[in-house]
Amino acid sequence: MKIDIIGRGNVGWHLMHAFADRADTVAVNPRTLEGLRQDCDLYLIAVTDDAITDVTRRLKETLPAEAAVAHTSGTTGIETVTEHFRNAGVFYPLQTFTKGVELDYREIPVMLEASDDSTREILTGAARLLSEKVMNVDSGQRALYHIASVFSCNFVNHLWALSSAYLDGHGLDFDALRPLLKETTRKLDDRAPYNAQTGPAVRHDLKTVNRQMQSLLNEKGYELADIYMTFTRSIMTHHPKKENQ
Amino acid sequence: MKIDIIGRGNVGWHLMHAFADRADTVAVNPRTLEGLRQDCDLYLIAVTDDAITDVTRRLKETLPAEAAVAHTSGTTGIETVTEHFRNAGVFYPLQTFTKGVELDYREIPVMLEASDDSTREILTGAARLLSEKVMNVDSGQRALYHIASVFSCNFVNHLWALSSAYLDGHGLDFDALRPLLKETTRKLDDRAPYNAQTGPAVRHDLKTVNRQMQSLLNEKGYELADIYMTFTRSIMTHHPKKENQ
Repeated sequence: MKIDIIGRGNVGWHLMHAFADRADTVAVNPRTLEGLRQDCDLYLIAVTDDAITDVTRRLKETLPAEAAVAHTSGTTGIETVTEHFRNAGVFYPLQTFTKGVELDYREIPVMLEASDDSTREILTGAARLLSEKVMNVDSGQRALYHIASVFSCNFVNHLWALSSAYLDGHGLDFDALRPLLKETTRKLDDRAPYNAQTGPAVRHDLKTVNRQMQSLLNEKGYELADIYMTFTRSIMTHHPKKENQ
Repeated sequence: MKIDIIGRGNVGWHLMHAFADRADTVAVNPRTLEGLRQDCDLYLIAVTDDAITDVTRRLKETLPAEAAVAHTSGTTGIETVTEHFRNAGVFYPLQTFTKGVELDYREIPVMLEASDDSTREILTGAARLLSEKVMNVDSGQRALYHIASVFSCNFVNHLWALSSAYLDGHGLDFDALRPLLKETTRKLDDRAPYNAQTGPAVRHDLKTVNRQMQSLLNEKGYELADIYMTFTRSIMTHHPKKENQ
């Protein structure tokens, strides 16, 4: 397959590496569109959400009307592309990408949406070149997956950042928690997260909850106390006390 | 070393496996204390927090006054043991243990506290048999580490459970997020969590934040909306908007 990737940021870099020898790919500068080929099977727009509309508009001026064009964003609807191209789609790899760090692309879900069957076929062919997990996901569902990934990835990372700052502030070492974090993630291989829940809240151990809450009320800004109470309440609600607790 | 481990739950099981051929260990039933040896270098109490006081009291009736006795709890102070034994301590491996799943014990931090130097020496000797990370941590510091691990492990897992329930409720598949979760954890190997932060909040992408908040306000109970707002505010506060954003 012949694929031009418009955008050379994080996602663009990874798509180039993921396709590697599996497709005939060129990375195109989204500002100049220099080197853009006219006869590609697929054009993938891998730019920031804000820039998608502008890039799509400029592609329309350059490419044939029947070109298959897809963006790679989790939060942008397909209509940004359908407005300008009749063979339009979304090609969204659900992953957090760091430029320079190659990943096992085979297991990354690629969520596809297409304006029509022939475009879907092209997108599916391209997605299968790099991943074993090709999913049909419409814009509404993709928005929900994106929200879930904000909770599961962005908010999780922020909890680690808060923990790290908290320990730092007391002259203690966040590194001591690293084996714990790894095992917390690994446990998900064996069981659903609901069944993996541990800690004072799920045990309804109010003695420990009260002691920890008291301690956190001494931290400035009450931010940690606020989060502690929110989560403790939520965990206790989702895991009601058992008869024998 | 000769070590009796009182308690055959999660932590007891793991201590038995961690010491394996490295020490002469016996697992003792905490209810009957049957098989308890009189001449051990160390007695490790690995029972639930609530049971530590009772087990320590009954050990006092059985063991010589100079026995070295330590509990393995993160949340219980050393005084629970010092009250009954003059060679008292805490031997706390900071990890989330699942019975039946062996771990790489060498990298698990073992946090030690001792009533005196000779007990500290015994505890250090035992800890070094299983881990490369032996730390001196007093009861106050241990309480802070425990709070940090509640945020970094228990609350993180709950975010995953909430995401899973949310996707389930919309007929979508939490498994699609797994590669993302793994990579989120792996990224911590390269950088501090603060520097690994991604997502709409850290980008001050208010368009996406507002859209996701609107969507979450349709979920019953407003729990997800509440957590979303708490985290978004917190992330934005800790990552102030840059001039060029």
